[in-house]
Amino acid sequence: MDQSNEMNGSARSWTTRRDKKAQQISKMKRLTEGRVIPTNKIVDALEILIQPGDCVALEGNNQKQASFLSDALSHVDSAKVNNLHMVMSSISRPEHLDIFEKGIARLLDFSFAGPQSLRMAQMIEDGSIEVGSIHTYLELYGRLFVDLTPNIALVAADKADSHGNLYTGPNTEETPTIVEATAFRDGIVIAQVNELTEELPRVDIPGSWVDFIVVSDKPYQLEALFTRDPRQISEMHILMGMMAIRGIYERHHIQSLNHGVGFNTAAIELLLPTYGESLGLKGKICKNWTLNPHPTLIPAIESGWVESVHSFGGELGMERYVAARPDVFFTGKDGSLRSNRAMCQVAGQYAVDAFVGSTLQMDFYGNSSTVTLGRLAGYGGAPNMGSDPHGRRHASDAWLNMITGESDIQRGKKLVIQMVETFQQGNKPVFVESLDAIKVGKDAKLPIAPVMVYGDDVTHVVTEEGIAYLYKAQNEEERKQALAAIAGVTPLGKGSGSEITEKLRKDGVVAFPEDLKIKRTDAKRSLLAAKSIDDLVDWSDGLYEPPVKFRSW
Amino acid sequence: MDQSNEMNGSARSWTTRRDKKAQQISKMKRLTEGRVIPTNKIVDALEILIQPGDCVALEGNNQKQASFLSDALSHVDSAKVNNLHMVMSSISRPEHLDIFEKGIARLLDFSFAGPQSLRMAQMIEDGSIEVGSIHTYLELYGRLFVDLTPNIALVAADKADSHGNLYTGPNTEETPTIVEATAFRDGIVIAQVNELTEELPRVDIPGSWVDFIVVSDKPYQLEALFTRDPRQISEMHILMGMMAIRGIYERHHIQSLNHGVGFNTAAIELLLPTYGESLGLKGKICKNWTLNPHPTLIPAIESGWVESVHSFGGELGMERYVAARPDVFFTGKDGSLRSNRAMCQVAGQYAVDAFVGSTLQMDFYGNSSTVTLGRLAGYGGAPNMGSDPHGRRHASDAWLNMITGESDIQRGKKLVIQMVETFQQGNKPVFVESLDAIKVGKDAKLPIAPVMVYGDDVTHVVTEEGIAYLYKAQNEEERKQALAAIAGVTPLGKGSGSEITEKLRKDGVVAFPEDLKIKRTDAKRSLLAAKSIDDLVDWSDGLYEPPVKFRSW
Repeated sequence: MDQSNEMNGSARSWTTRRDKKAQQISKMKRLTEGRVIPTNKIVDALEILIQPGDCVALEGNNQKQASFLSDALSHVDSAKVNNLHMVMSSISRPEHLDIFEKGIARLLDFSFAGPQSLRMAQMIEDGSIEVGSIHTYLELYGRLFVDLTPNIALVAADKADSHGNLYTGPNTEETPTIVEATAFRDGIVIAQVNELTEELPRVDIPGSWVDFIVVSDKPYQLEALFTRDPRQISEMHILMGMMAIRGIYERHHIQSLNHGVGFNTAAIELLLPTYGESLGLKGKICKNWTLNPHPTLIPAIESGWVESVHSFGGELGMERYVAARPDVFFTGKDGSLRSNRAMCQVAGQYAVDAFVGSTLQMDFYGNSSTVTLGRLAGYGGAPNMGSDPHGRRHASDAWLNMITGESDIQRGKKLVIQMVETFQQGNKPVFVESLDAIKVGKDAKLPIAPVMVYGDDVTHVVTEEGIAYLYKAQNEEERKQALAAIAGVTPLGKGSGSEITEKLRKDGVVAFPEDLKIKRTDAKRSLLAAKSIDDLVDWSDGLYEPPVKFRSW
Repeated sequence: MDQSNEMNGSARSWTTRRDKKAQQISKMKRLTEGRVIPTNKIVDALEILIQPGDCVALEGNNQKQASFLSDALSHVDSAKVNNLHMVMSSISRPEHLDIFEKGIARLLDFSFAGPQSLRMAQMIEDGSIEVGSIHTYLELYGRLFVDLTPNIALVAADKADSHGNLYTGPNTEETPTIVEATAFRDGIVIAQVNELTEELPRVDIPGSWVDFIVVSDKPYQLEALFTRDPRQISEMHILMGMMAIRGIYERHHIQSLNHGVGFNTAAIELLLPTYGESLGLKGKICKNWTLNPHPTLIPAIESGWVESVHSFGGELGMERYVAARPDVFFTGKDGSLRSNRAMCQVAGQYAVDAFVGSTLQMDFYGNSSTVTLGRLAGYGGAPNMGSDPHGRRHASDAWLNMITGESDIQRGKKLVIQMVETFQQGNKPVFVESLDAIKVGKDAKLPIAPVMVYGDDVTHVVTEEGIAYLYKAQNEEERKQALAAIAGVTPLGKGSGSEITEKLRKDGVVAFPEDLKIKRTDAKRSLLAAKSIDDLVDWSDGLYEPPVKFRSW
């Protein structure tokens, strides 16, 4: 019996990907005998290795950019290399979009386009780019193993040895994930490296996963995205930070958390060693963190608040500080940080009590988005961490605290905390009847509106007016009333009646600063453990080396 | 200014973990000069390297067991090594619990205890084990980077070289995740290997992450957990499989999916090349899979249905078949499978259209559990994949198909499909008023009842009577009515009125076989593409080599 041939009709090949790869690599013989592509031959190499229609993962990471390779890709002959399907977590550099205008690439699946969000929206409208989907980081990584497996990976590392072993160090980020998905399905992995050496500090990615190495003409681009200058923290941020610490962190015993990047969360980080200390909370809250090495976390670390930090990526200037604090940070035998964006997103989704983020717009039911008219910025990691993971089964105090019902079948909930001032820059109210994201989604013909965090996942909203404990709201109408109570003089807030507000305060659905025993007049910059970048350097005993743009000296 | 010292009071060490590790390793000099621990010295080595109270990740994997190391751990002197905090995804072997009875270990965080579920429940009642939490795999992995970071990892690999590089091959599973979390926070990584060689087929884990290697006295334990003998597939399974294909897979265009292990899903796999082919569905559904290499998927693969399979782990006997089908499976340069449980769980959570599972009990609102009285089996991966990930933002046909409302702010939903016969073995109804899990949870003093999949995440339930499209139910009462309509002669089903049922059928909330144009009498075993293990071997052209217990010859 040979059913397989009977059913198949004729024999088929089961090694088409492997054969294709072998063929492409054999053509490389005219450029190089080994793994190392000469720097000045990279465009030729890409023209040999990449075929029209290939699925290409280009490491446009959140911070680290495979900038030498993306530049080279934008210089290939579009008659030879075209119609590529690009898979990129971040659209950060001009050539990331140039390749679409030049016809080298056609289809894009991505996560985040912050720096290129305006041009992205325009190109979609012009039809010069076709978008597959917009993802959170983690779902894009998942799809690398399902239906977006690359034929080609173009990634960046610090160093390689001649066997192809890679050292990615503090900025390991998502490189191992992209390389694994590509290498183990017969794709071709090309890594740009700043340096070729026989003495790697450690191996982050084994050489048997890597096909080619090229030494770049200059080091890969790296941005400091998680540094917030304490000088820009206002008394309003401080007031909101005090409310969050008192009314949320302390109340719900938040032990583990992720902070998004922003001045509100920076304020909290800088209030822990002062205001938090005065409340006797050290060792009781905020012990385990998933976040990049925020410089504003240095005082809390130095004061003994922080047990551990696992990081998505590194942060420019924090290298020496992190290396000197291995009890807190995940570091390798060489002493430097090992980040891992995929596993940190898993941890941020599933293993922490709380996510604390911010937004540009929130509708009356708590749905929010950072998408504004004309800009398609994508999601990054916020929706992944800013949602309740229904698969979670382990309990913590904070998670159990979110249970409001009496049923035998109930679970806790992750705390999803949004911190927003009632007005954005330009005097625009944050609370709006309809999110711009709805119009942007329709204009870009997206199948759903690009909402960042959905209202049904939000447990708390903090404004300068107070806290809405949305997890306690009985229904949508009460959710709206609770938001109105803290919406200040925005249109939503002005519609709020004092009788309803008093009932919500009594029921604990809303709290004002006075309900939390916080005096607004205490919210002074003198409460900040560090008031400037210089102060952060001092706290670090000189180990933190801020990038030039953050220095005042 | 030196705020840090001022705030700290006195200087503290930031290298306590690293110093402790260096000290433990220096004591090893009396046993070995290098990385390799002599096989007969492993108990001594563990007594040197592990300190009382340490957090120890012992690789009790789903299939692969670090059996040499777990056996050794159960033989250490509890006067020297005690009060350990064990972190284990699977409790599979007797010594995994023996160490608690012997006082070597005290506290346990785990995911799955299938083979030891009865003893586990008993030990909790006796107080001889203290359980931290029960997790899904993915949340346990997340916590390795947050608040359950091991001091010691005891893992299993196929081969190592003298530099500590590990080859884990088809059974890579969760080894890299455990090792990464441990190695990068100054924990000690000890790997048992079947063989020490200088010629690794490939490197799965870099040597710079590994501290010690020990050659085990016999190869690690490995179980075939995902093999289902087609002989045991009944006509009832086939009928349910036909309904699932017609009424769910085809209707919602399911392209990517995870199948739990069971005879219902095995039936579907074996119906694709026959019944599915007759419906013209090849190339339209079931293209991308996240699951272990199920032998029952061979006919669908050979018939050209399957584009890709990414796997949590390997499956005993499937090694040669997988290696010969690299277009479909993720394989390394050496040709053998590379599995990765963490990334496959991410893919199964976020990147597939549908999860298809089964259960032992379901309550009247669709909540379900495999926990039954006296047994605490834990969760494994089902809750992770059997829930709607609220962070998902990319769309697919199936996902968008779950939208029932009209709002501008809405998202799709993952399909969570439960397939259950109305009666379990022993004539017990599957549909029960109250899950046993509630009592088990109370008896074991768990903070929440160990529910496997919550009703509000379930979109479809299939029984031999029909399909309940729960995602269409307007409220809890209608959800109950829909389940009653397909609950047959169980108490729930008998309470179902024909008038209500007719309305539900008309509204498309319930479908019976005839509504799907399926004749019950067509559900014959002759429809199965393979009727026995022998047939599967034939389909594979002899590449599938079933373990002895599955052979009839």
